[in-house]
Amino acid sequence: MKKLINDPDQVVTDALRGMAAAHPELRVDLENKVIFRGDAPRQGKVGLVSGGGSGHEPLHGGYVGPGMLDAAAAGEVFTSPVPDQVMAATQGVDGGAGVLHIVKNYTGDVMNFEMAAEMAGDVEVVQVVTQDDVAVQDSLYTVGRRGVGVTVFVEKLAGAAAEEGRDLQAVAGVAQAASDAGRSMGMALTSSTVPSAGSPTFEIGDEEMEMGIGIHGEPGRTRMPLAPAGEVAAMLTEPVVDDLGVGRGDLVVAMLNGMGGTPLLELYLMYGEVATILDKAGITVARNLVGDYITSVEMAGCSLTLMRADDEMLRLWDAPVKTPGLRWGV
Amino acid sequence: MKKLINDPDQVVTDALRGMAAAHPELRVDLENKVIFRGDAPRQGKVGLVSGGGSGHEPLHGGYVGPGMLDAAAAGEVFTSPVPDQVMAATQGVDGGAGVLHIVKNYTGDVMNFEMAAEMAGDVEVVQVVTQDDVAVQDSLYTVGRRGVGVTVFVEKLAGAAAEEGRDLQAVAGVAQAASDAGRSMGMALTSSTVPSAGSPTFEIGDEEMEMGIGIHGEPGRTRMPLAPAGEVAAMLTEPVVDDLGVGRGDLVVAMLNGMGGTPLLELYLMYGEVATILDKAGITVARNLVGDYITSVEMAGCSLTLMRADDEMLRLWDAPVKTPGLRWGV
Repeated sequence: MKKLINDPDQVVTDALRGMAAAHPELRVDLENKVIFRGDAPRQGKVGLVSGGGSGHEPLHGGYVGPGMLDAAAAGEVFTSPVPDQVMAATQGVDGGAGVLHIVKNYTGDVMNFEMAAEMAGDVEVVQVVTQDDVAVQDSLYTVGRRGVGVTVFVEKLAGAAAEEGRDLQAVAGVAQAASDAGRSMGMALTSSTVPSAGSPTFEIGDEEMEMGIGIHGEPGRTRMPLAPAGEVAAMLTEPVVDDLGVGRGDLVVAMLNGMGGTPLLELYLMYGEVATILDKAGITVARNLVGDYITSVEMAGCSLTLMRADDEMLRLWDAPVKTPGLRWGV
Repeated sequence: MKKLINDPDQVVTDALRGMAAAHPELRVDLENKVIFRGDAPRQGKVGLVSGGGSGHEPLHGGYVGPGMLDAAAAGEVFTSPVPDQVMAATQGVDGGAGVLHIVKNYTGDVMNFEMAAEMAGDVEVVQVVTQDDVAVQDSLYTVGRRGVGVTVFVEKLAGAAAEEGRDLQAVAGVAQAASDAGRSMGMALTSSTVPSAGSPTFEIGDEEMEMGIGIHGEPGRTRMPLAPAGEVAAMLTEPVVDDLGVGRGDLVVAMLNGMGGTPLLELYLMYGEVATILDKAGITVARNLVGDYITSVEMAGCSLTLMRADDEMLRLWDAPVKTPGLRWGV
């Protein structure tokens, strides 16, 4: 295992210490492993809390800040945060207007966020679960679909809605609509290694790739020989487009996401292939992200997320955001 | 070789096509492999041109836009752009106030930019060469020190100065001052593979790391056994601090940069270690970047850059910038 770490069991705490040093505008609770906006709680504003296993950075801690999340709970690598962490996040951001939990669809995450909501007592909590991965239906870790890339979009749009002062039901509605409008599919060239495990999550041959992989290295649709980028792009784009049901004249927000170990050069190359396919289908990409937004430690590979978008969603997308991982307009 | 590419010889063109699709606010000249600001040339504004071999993304094309570069010439992977490319960039951004060339110190780059300046005819050109890598003095590819991370800072500060309407000598002065005030040191856990070569640039053992590596995988100071992050941080920080001559009471801008294949989790962890060392030395980090800013394809590893900063440099740092790779204030 080749990693820039000290003790494999202290990776998350050590990284949070670095986040605190790099971003004095955030407040990092090292004991609970929660990253807060520096000015949380904001009175009268709906609080947004997300979280999950670490190893997917910048998700979720990198999306804490004005216009996006109020707090993120960091579990161990690829491990759900415990209810106490999520409760601390929830209580720490409650400004009297209630708290939205944005949860990726994994059994442990959903359960622990639900328990935290119960433990949070008087705080009104609504949960929105993202489940956008079209690769597989049900698995060892999920009932239904896995929550992946659309989570970034949900956090952005709901964050903008909360910043505008909308109430909890309205913010939850924005989050749910974004979640419902998004689909994703990922692929991997290499595996990843959880520090405390010390060896790769799965084995993959030098001439192979895995289509439909999850962000924890969960098996996907098929193991197959390496293919040119254009073919890989088609294998990602077509199932997403089909499942989402978008076609000629539709607007989407697109994210070509790196899994952590893929150079930006290749991500842009892949985005060019995806853009060509969408253009031929008459689908307009209104906004896009190309880069590492929801990763799987050092895995080489990428994922595509498309979200059907209307003018209101684009307005919320364009609203100012100031976080370590996403920033514009401020 | 596991890469998301089509033809290994078309990687740069294919990636530029993706840049064009993702960033309609830029103008990509595919024939010359030059990325321009969409509104270049800006009349009366000093034009900023950089460039170099590809494989270091987001450097340089990802730093084209308001507040930073006007154009970047993309050579083949780890290969200097040819003079014709740089000339096209130079002529394309000249708004009558002259053009600054920001060049990393590699023999081929410096020579080709000089030839381009001669070929550009009436356009007044000033060249600033970055040479901040403290790891080695002179090498196969350089006389003097290699130009690495400080190039990002030079492009940001000179870009802000040009945006303010300063003249060519003043903008060049800002660039030179930033370059002079910066030092860097890098390390690698793994090698990288140039697509057209097809095999790793160098071999490194499973239990080894290379200290003082260059951004093309050039050998560094020493090959040694893997060490904990805290020790690695000290081996990067101490030579940089010593060479720069900063100490108690000094202000710096810091960049903990990923080489392309290192997860953000590890980069933040490393930044935490560096911040602790600097804090103990009484050095204040006034601004920082943590992430992939000047990479070496898919190499795992990181580099540290420190730039001694004064109030004027921080003011230019904070000025609005809108590029694919660096954005704030707009």
